Amino acid sequence: MTGLPDDHPSQKFRDSAYMRAARNRPADRTPVWFQRQAGRSLPEYRAVRTEGSILDTILNPELSAEITMQPVRRYGVDAAILYSDIVVPITAVGFGMDVVPGVGPVTEQPFAGRADLSRLRLLEPDVDTPHVIETVKLLVNELEVPLIGFAGAPFTLASYLIEGRPSRTYTRTKALMLGDEQLWHDLMERLGDLAIASLRSQILAGASAVQLFDSWAGSLDRTSYERYVAPHTTRVISELSDLDVPKAQFGVGTGELLQAMAATGVDLLGVDWRVPIDVARERIGPDIAVQGNLDPAILGAPWPAVEAAVRDILTRNAGRPGHVFNLGHGVLPETDPTVLERVVELVHAETSK
Amino acid sequence: MTGLPDDHPSQKFRDSAYMRAARNRPADRTPVWFQRQAGRSLPEYRAVRTEGSILDTILNPELSAEITMQPVRRYGVDAAILYSDIVVPITAVGFGMDVVPGVGPVTEQPFAGRADLSRLRLLEPDVDTPHVIETVKLLVNELEVPLIGFAGAPFTLASYLIEGRPSRTYTRTKALMLGDEQLWHDLMERLGDLAIASLRSQILAGASAVQLFDSWAGSLDRTSYERYVAPHTTRVISELSDLDVPKAQFGVGTGELLQAMAATGVDLLGVDWRVPIDVARERIGPDIAVQGNLDPAILGAPWPAVEAAVRDILTRNAGRPGHVFNLGHGVLPETDPTVLERVVELVHAETSK
Repeated sequence: MTGLPDDHPSQKFRDSAYMRAARNRPADRTPVWFQRQAGRSLPEYRAVRTEGSILDTILNPELSAEITMQPVRRYGVDAAILYSDIVVPITAVGFGMDVVPGVGPVTEQPFAGRADLSRLRLLEPDVDTPHVIETVKLLVNELEVPLIGFAGAPFTLASYLIEGRPSRTYTRTKALMLGDEQLWHDLMERLGDLAIASLRSQILAGASAVQLFDSWAGSLDRTSYERYVAPHTTRVISELSDLDVPKAQFGVGTGELLQAMAATGVDLLGVDWRVPIDVARERIGPDIAVQGNLDPAILGAPWPAVEAAVRDILTRNAGRPGHVFNLGHGVLPETDPTVLERVVELVHAETSK
Repeated sequence: MTGLPDDHPSQKFRDSAYMRAARNRPADRTPVWFQRQAGRSLPEYRAVRTEGSILDTILNPELSAEITMQPVRRYGVDAAILYSDIVVPITAVGFGMDVVPGVGPVTEQPFAGRADLSRLRLLEPDVDTPHVIETVKLLVNELEVPLIGFAGAPFTLASYLIEGRPSRTYTRTKALMLGDEQLWHDLMERLGDLAIASLRSQILAGASAVQLFDSWAGSLDRTSYERYVAPHTTRVISELSDLDVPKAQFGVGTGELLQAMAATGVDLLGVDWRVPIDVARERIGPDIAVQGNLDPAILGAPWPAVEAAVRDILTRNAGRPGHVFNLGHGVLPETDPTVLERVVELVHAETSK
């Protein structure tokens, strides 16, 4: 009973390196993919990307599928990640927000009080985001590796809605969280609903796995994370439990939160480079797979330094099942793609059985 | 043998709450001060602050002393911190750099190679930064609490020199660090020399304690920190060991580095809010005092939430000696000073013996 049709791609890719590792099982090699592998660092991306907002590009399924495929062709990575953005469901239900190049998600009317809840109605994926479903369908016909769908986790989305733009301090977000707990939970529930509906539609259209991006959860102390955030992440994972695909979660600077994040029910937890991967595995326990954790800034260093850092991660994991090799955050725009090619080759060469 | 004259202020304040706590000894109350207590959040600061660069204001000893005093008068904190900037020694030796309001330290000619080492000659405090010495001297005549001097730690300074501006990724810094280890260490040694000379002059002029700001060290994994950074911090502390004043160190997001930072020989280690203070004390061991660690963003929340967070920190420290109450990072510009007043009152009321 997987809750999915027998011909769902997750069945076809069941024994692929990514799917087995994401389920904490032995695989024939350590799978590799890179957060933000599709996008700014690739010349072929800059060649096809039209002017204007990324949100317009995402409206075009053919183009979005092509952009998703580009890094798979170039790098030979073990998974594709849908080319989209975490604010897509929010904008699809009419909460005005744009993604400004070089800045990030911006809204001129931030979430400021209870009345703004009405700007976050339920998502009807067939009606609101048919282009996303169409992109997934185009991809599963072409891809020979699993496709990872994704959504923004409630906390990280809430921070964009409340701050109105990317923040380094999350002052308003924390003021609302601590100052009006009921409103906070109501907002987080709506954002959780958006994530659930979006992820469900991506899985049903053919995504073999999903990842929740709670990129900025690491700005919280553990007590706050457990009280204000974890219950909502837990609910998102739980509401998708009828769909038997691996569910991953990722955040930056989450060293102190790893146990709490692991307790939300995810299968796979992404960690940044600040926590050595062996230490991360100790904190999250033996039942959950780990994803990471090369410092993306290191990719600008000479190859011997990159190679040493890659080998250090593999050595620390010591061949244990359940390791998906990745960066500790997204590929930086200035990254040389040939370095990423070499990283994939190295990980595969070192771990193939 | 303190290496200091008998009438040095550190003698007068020897039994003050800050000095005793910084030395990990029992004090008659938990001392409080706030990183960036002098500055942007205070209306009396905005009233006296002239237009133009902060570096011009720092050239004026009377004004800098006044700004240093403002939060001491208003809050009744247990220590003053010199109003200055970590780039002062760098600019004083002629490495062109400005501090742009709302941005931070910026240089049009970043450090790019070995030839740039010559832009970092030794600091002669009497000649290069007489205004800083004068400010300290003015302050020690007036202050009834210890004055904390400070300097930028080599890594954090290097990141500004190499990136040319504040960074979120430190790509160039890490590329140099990993790509040319000899040049990296040569640069770090020069920056260490600047910190040593500057701190020594501040102490001899009357500062009762010093703090090294390695604000961005938390961007590094522990292996890199131990290899490329810790030896230089250790040298700075060691070179000042003849001067018997407490030496503190601070960085953001340093949860995984605390043991390594404690091993540099500091007396007092500042931690941010991501690590609960009891966990931080476990990691740094019983011999070193701890400073922190209220999330500055929480100060924008309603008072009951702030109060609960303050009490949680005190509860976690559980009355152990060697706790200096502070924020986990600097006071944010939008912070309401009356909230900081209440925090000081609360900590004092809860901990006075």
